[in-house]
Order: sequence, then C-alpha cells, then structure tokens
Amino acid sequence: MAKTLVFGHKNPDTDSITSAIVYAYLKNQTGHGAEAVRLGDVTEETAYALEQFNVEAPREISSVAGETQTVILVDHNERQQSADGIEDVQILEVIDHHRIANFETEAPLYYRAEPVGCTATILLKLFKEKQVDIPKNMAGLMLSAIISDSLLFKSPTCTDEDRQAAKELEAIAGVNAEEYGLALLKAGADVSQKSIDDLLTLDAKEFGMGDYKVEIAQVNVVDPADVLNRQRELEEAIYERISEKELDLYFFVVTDIINNDSVALSLGKMANKAEEAFQVTFTNHTAVLKGVVSRKKQVVPALTDALTAEA
Amino acid sequence: MAKTLVFGHKNPDTDSITSAIVYAYLKNQTGHGAEAVRLGDVTEETAYALEQFNVEAPREISSVAGETQTVILVDHNERQQSADGIEDVQILEVIDHHRIANFETEAPLYYRAEPVGCTATILLKLFKEKQVDIPKNMAGLMLSAIISDSLLFKSPTCTDEDRQAAKELEAIAGVNAEEYGLALLKAGADVSQKSIDDLLTLDAKEFGMGDYKVEIAQVNVVDPADVLNRQRELEEAIYERISEKELDLYFFVVTDIINNDSVALSLGKMANKAEEAFQVTFTNHTAVLKGVVSRKKQVVPALTDALTAEA
Repeated sequence: MAKTLVFGHKNPDTDSITSAIVYAYLKNQTGHGAEAVRLGDVTEETAYALEQFNVEAPREISSVAGETQTVILVDHNERQQSADGIEDVQILEVIDHHRIANFETEAPLYYRAEPVGCTATILLKLFKEKQVDIPKNMAGLMLSAIISDSLLFKSPTCTDEDRQAAKELEAIAGVNAEEYGLALLKAGADVSQKSIDDLLTLDAKEFGMGDYKVEIAQVNVVDPADVLNRQRELEEAIYERISEKELDLYFFVVTDIINNDSVALSLGKMANKAEEAFQVTFTNHTAVLKGVVSRKKQVVPALTDALTAEA
Repeated sequence: MAKTLVFGHKNPDTDSITSAIVYAYLKNQTGHGAEAVRLGDVTEETAYALEQFNVEAPREISSVAGETQTVILVDHNERQQSADGIEDVQILEVIDHHRIANFETEAPLYYRAEPVGCTATILLKLFKEKQVDIPKNMAGLMLSAIISDSLLFKSPTCTDEDRQAAKELEAIAGVNAEEYGLALLKAGADVSQKSIDDLLTLDAKEFGMGDYKVEIAQVNVVDPADVLNRQRELEEAIYERISEKELDLYFFVVTDIINNDSVALSLGKMANKAEEAFQVTFTNHTAVLKGVVSRKKQVVPALTDALTAEA
C-alpha cells in the first residue's frame, strides 16, 4: 500500500513545508508509514531553515491522483488551498490553526485545530502526547515555523502558547531564537533577486468582502524602499491583474520586519476605502500603516469593515 | 457576559447529554465559565445514568438566540443537527467523533475530533492533558456514554481506546461496567411504555443514497418480539411516513442488546434492496440480521452499496 502523504497548502510558506516534514516524522516514529510532500516551490526563507538544520525539501506533487489513497493535511483545510484530486482520497487527519471552511469528509477522522499562531505549536504538543523525543533538526524546523508565522513573535497572531513552544524548541534546537530568527526572516526578505511578478504572487490571497473582490499580497522586507523604488512597474503589473481578475481593490502590503510596520499600496476603484479602514491618508497611492504586520488579524478585518459598512 | 453554552446534538442520546455536562465541568475547572444545556428530551437510558450518579439533567433550550454569544459543540458538528440560531454565535470549540460536514467558521477555533466510538473517550484524554482530577460522578457519566455508544463494547464502532477508557473510568466510578452497563441498556430498552410514534422517532435519521431517500430508525430492546408483536400498527405508521416524506425506503432496525443481533423491517418501493444489502431473505418484510448492531458502520454502508450499485 502506498504511504500516507502529508502536506501543507499551495503556495507553501515555512509552516506548511516544515509541518509536513515534522508530522511525517512523528507518524513514522509511531508506526504509521508517511511521506511529506509539498504543493509548490520552497521560498528562500524556507530554504534557509532547511539548510540550517540539514533537512531535504520534500518532493513536489501537483495532484494526489495516483499517488496515494490516504492523506494528512497540515496548516490548512479549505479544499481550494489543497492538492488537486483531494476529493478522491481519504483525509485521515488534519492538524491546523485556521478557520474551518470548504471541508467535508465521508468518514470520522482525527482533526486537531487550535487557535494558535502556528501549526508547529500544536505539533510540539503531539510529540509530548505521544511521548516521542524531538530530534534537534525537527525542533529547529518547528522553531523556524513559529518565527516565520509570528514575524519573530511580533505579530498579533502570536499567542503565549506559541512563545512558550518557541522557548522549549530553542533549547532543543541549540540556537538563539532572536539571532537565528532575524537571519531567517532576512533570508526571506531579500527582494533584490525578485521580479515584479514574484513580489505580487509569492503570497497573494483573494477575498470576497461584501460585494467586492479584493486581492491582498504581502511581502516581507528589511527596508520597504527596496520594493517601493519599483512602484511604477508594480502599479502597471497590478492594474493588469485588476483588469484580468475584475478586482475592485488590490492591496499590496510591504512589511518591514525590523520595525514591524508596513507600507501599503492601494489600487483599484475601491482604493480610497483603505483610508477609512486604517484612518490614514494615502499619498501617491501609498501610506505607512503603523504596527500593522498581520494580513489575517489586521489587514483583512479593517478592509472588510470599511467595504461592508458602505452597503 | 453570558456563559458559554455546551451542548450535544438534537434528539440527544446519552453521549450528547453526558458529554455536555462533563465538558462544561472541565471548562469550569480550568477557568472558563460554561453551562451544559440540551437540545431535546432526556431518554430513559440517559435518565437512568443521571440518577445513578446523582447528576441533574441540563436545562433544555430550543435556540441559542438571545442565550449567549459563544458555544461549544460536543458529539456533533453538522449544522442541521445543532441548535437553531447556531449561525449567529461564535463556535469556540468542537469535541466530536463523527465525520465533518456542513460546518464552517469565520475564525480559528479549537476542534478536536478523533475516530473513536464515543465523545467521552476523547474527554478522558482532555482531563489528562489539562491535569484535572475526574470526580466519581463525572467518571460514571463518561462510562455510561461509552457503554451506550458501544452497546456494552459489542458494536464495531468500539475501538481499543474506548475499551481502555472504559476500564479507567470503571475504576474511578466504582461500578462494575458489565453489570451496570446491562442495567443501563435495559433501562433504555424498555419499550413497554413506548408508543408507535416513539419507536419511530426516538432515533431516526434520514439519508440520501444515490437517487433514493432513505430513513433508518433504530430501537434497542431486550427481546425484539416486544416490538414486532406490534408489526401491523408499525407498518401503518411507517407507510404514512413514506408517503408524507416521499421516502424510497424505510428501514426499521430492532436491535437485541442481549444477543447483539437485529431484526429489520424493510418497507417502501426499494424495500427488496435490503435482501441484496444483507444477503438474507425477508419474510413478511422482516429478517434477522446476524451480528448487526451499528447503523453507522453496518446498516448505512450496506444499504448505500445496494442502492447505488443499481445506478
């Protein structure tokens, strides 16, 4: 019988890649044959983490069809974020920290979701519950995921449980979380080699807000000027996307990982709603959003309120 | 702020009532104000368990509207099985052992589902994880739920984890599981005072199978003859339901809790498909189904196969 495949979401971030690796390890240690795979390219940030802890990137698959009969999802549950062909295999387990939507099974399953900042924080609990020792490299990968998802503990998504988990993992991994974390985030924040298309697609998500179609892309940088000095090219590419996808708003968030602020670029026919959402004035389509780093907890709720209040 | 309400499914069985009580107790012990409520009448089986362990039945509610802003679901997740008004409150947690369907949240939540035979088996783990002592009466209620859902460990839904949990709970509750369990099941299996309508509605669920609409009702008895001596009245009432609800098949399962077999009564235009499903001949619309006790694991899959193979 083919092994159970373990994977995170499409457009995988560090949590999605490392949680697949770490949970597949735990399943194998507890007697269940499992293989970690990925549904997309490894980012530079994730590549840095894998290299630091000497772990190979998982094999990439585009569809589960013909690969296996059974899968385990980590760091996601919504069908549209998952592997092609997911409808035709049995989902044995889900380990996640997101809302539940567009998810349905025929049979009972193991589903473990907790409202914490990172899947790795839940995985640490599972190691303890199963009484399996955590090797140094697995601890390093879990720590990397928490640092990545929490922007080095600065994001409002970061809970006390995430901070506590990071402390325990830091000790096992044998690194200094602050030093290693900054290097990790910087590795992902090097935009010098990134094309305009990269910047707009590496971490972009589409949302329905009231009657409006909104896309929000985010990129982490050490200095927002490194991206904003290409504003004219960015705007051209964004206007193309707006017209192709019939978007009402394209909101591009350039997050400063050193100062934990963001610069936003707001385009499209509902662009001015961003002023209401964040109570700031946009000049030349841009504004600094003080203290804003989380799309999930800060950007999406603010824009949703502004776009639905009008109706 | 109103307390968080904790409840199981409509038409509550022993697991739904006791898991609400037990989990509300655990939440209160860990500093989260919670109140157990119920979405329907307490069965005679459940009443027996509550009386044995000297616990009051929870308050009944019909809707969560105006009751609270936050809820915790136990022993179910599907919206149609849950409280009216569930769309308008925040679901903080789900503790369950069923498939996931018709379930969606706006925010991340704590979701704990495991493919075991009973919610109480998961609750026992949560007490351990939270390091909260289990009082004798709470252990008794959890043991009752496992006995009820597993038909005293005889159902194919019963896992090793359920058996192990029952052993631990038996010791804390200070009862003999076999003796107490038989008395509990018998309390629920006394059909002498039940009307025909009771028999057909106490535990009836509707299913779509291929193109067909099927209702399957189940009742536990000490002797199937106690129900089948009212076959003519039963058939009249069932034919009324078939015509009202436009059912293609009504399948009535009378389960013998002593011998762990069932007698089925199969009516409606697809009634003969039951012969194919269970490989037995029905005489006068009835047949003994050897070793069949579980609707979920035995009856539904067999009928689904027979009704969808035809297409």
